Amino acid sequence: MLMKDKAADQIPDIADIMSAKQRIERQIRTTPVLSDPQLNAHLGCELWLKCENLQHTGAFKFRGASNAIALLDENDRHGDVATHSSGNHGAALAHAASTHNRRAWVVMPENSVKTKVEAVRRFGGEIVFCPPNQQAREKGLAELVAKGCIPVPPYDHGHIICGQGTAVIEMSEQIPGMDIILTPVGGGGLISGSAIAARALIANVKVFGAEPEGAADTALSLSRGRRVDQFPVDTIADGLRAIVGVLNFEIIRDNVDKVITVSETGIVEAMALIWQHFRMLIEPSSATVIAAILASPEDFSGQRVGAIISGGNVDLEHLPFKL
Amino acid sequence: MLMKDKAADQIPDIADIMSAKQRIERQIRTTPVLSDPQLNAHLGCELWLKCENLQHTGAFKFRGASNAIALLDENDRHGDVATHSSGNHGAALAHAASTHNRRAWVVMPENSVKTKVEAVRRFGGEIVFCPPNQQAREKGLAELVAKGCIPVPPYDHGHIICGQGTAVIEMSEQIPGMDIILTPVGGGGLISGSAIAARALIANVKVFGAEPEGAADTALSLSRGRRVDQFPVDTIADGLRAIVGVLNFEIIRDNVDKVITVSETGIVEAMALIWQHFRMLIEPSSATVIAAILASPEDFSGQRVGAIISGGNVDLEHLPFKL
Repeated sequence: MLMKDKAADQIPDIADIMSAKQRIERQIRTTPVLSDPQLNAHLGCELWLKCENLQHTGAFKFRGASNAIALLDENDRHGDVATHSSGNHGAALAHAASTHNRRAWVVMPENSVKTKVEAVRRFGGEIVFCPPNQQAREKGLAELVAKGCIPVPPYDHGHIICGQGTAVIEMSEQIPGMDIILTPVGGGGLISGSAIAARALIANVKVFGAEPEGAADTALSLSRGRRVDQFPVDTIADGLRAIVGVLNFEIIRDNVDKVITVSETGIVEAMALIWQHFRMLIEPSSATVIAAILASPEDFSGQRVGAIISGGNVDLEHLPFKL
Repeated sequence: MLMKDKAADQIPDIADIMSAKQRIERQIRTTPVLSDPQLNAHLGCELWLKCENLQHTGAFKFRGASNAIALLDENDRHGDVATHSSGNHGAALAHAASTHNRRAWVVMPENSVKTKVEAVRRFGGEIVFCPPNQQAREKGLAELVAKGCIPVPPYDHGHIICGQGTAVIEMSEQIPGMDIILTPVGGGGLISGSAIAARALIANVKVFGAEPEGAADTALSLSRGRRVDQFPVDTIADGLRAIVGVLNFEIIRDNVDKVITVSETGIVEAMALIWQHFRMLIEPSSATVIAAILASPEDFSGQRVGAIISGGNVDLEHLPFKL
């Protein structure tokens, strides 16, 4: 019997994340962890990739969406769901919804990656395109909610945060003795769930985030001590263009040791490195974690690092690197 | 203590493959197995992919090369090694050799995939290019051997066959109750090792191979009851253009239930399906196994199938499919 979950607007704790794991573990993949001696020598640390690019729907987002949808069922809330998304949360919500006989409506920026548009549709999601800015995304979602859809926001939501945190439970079993947990930072769903789980499960672990310079609203928010709600976004990392959420910022402020900002060239170099050493294509958003190690080697030197590769939904026709 | 291995020109048995596993298990990755409900519904069977595309050097070839090199050490045979290869065995041999302080020389066809050329060089291998035909490959290797290199052929060699067979030992633990083991067929190293291991470890399992119509020398050899040593090769599956080996053919004839030939369009369709459902780019050679299920669904209907995805070393600039 699962414990009663906290409401979605409260900060979850490790018990909530453990419940989420039980709730979703038959739906999700326990994704593999991979390490490569040659890349480790290049980076100067022992890096383990948690391959959420190999998760169902090609991204960690399926964890949070599965938890949120399952909790709607438990709480007797019926009907269509809706969200805004650069694509990965949208595809994840569509897939999770379809397995629970619901329909998902997804507000997506017009400039979304083609592979992500295809994925949302393949899983049965209905897309509503909008201009590529935060205001338009939120307005589009509000309109769907006004029509009766249940909102399942992409990150600023306790049930989503719990689902994303389940990746770290797996990592704590797969990679003994981690010194550092490292994840990308966009809206903050992944890093906030990861930080709560890491603090509870792994002794003396540090939690680092990686954020593109062109979407460094979380780093700016941390330096100001309060969440900024606007930022002039310009980055190739399409999955990290959102502004950090309210709940997420609070959790990050209290549980994350550092958010490292990375350059666009660093992101592209990191994508190429992962292709070269693992023959995996990873999203620019995911490559931020490798870029962070390249940008700030002193933080990682000699450490055992568990880095979450958030997704693999790239446009094959527009890869930003050549070998 | 490992048992003394059989000579390389003898047909190995399961004990030799078990010894190989002990010998190489600290070097290789236990690669993950993945399944996707949506793809399973499309194919009409329960398909598990054994992801050797995520093996070190991006292909199963590292298993055989590691075993062969380790056995040279055990048998006190010192010096440089040499082989011919479309690329994956070359990179694998270079990597295995370098970890044993040897140099590897690799005869490669001039039309080799760029990613594979890069990989051989990255692992420290020395490349000798040759015209793209079997005779030129063997002549190039003979010249290196005449200069004193120890030959480590890509497939017609008991120690290589044993190494490749170790993938099926892992599969037998990772995927309980397999009805069918399915692998690509080129020179026959993978399928011959797989068949010996499958026969010994998995009750009532069928062993199927997948071979491109444009390199169907093994299917032709089986239909004639004797190994053909020439075939007019024309296929996108660059890793399967070799002629089946002598030892390999003998093992296949006695242990493989069927070799299914697949079309070029089937191979490309299969590559696209695996990208769509798993966000993995796999080689045309690997895609033959999915193409075989598409081409011959009655052989797989309702069965639990373990298919070896042989490698992921594709040229990103020349992908043969679009979505």
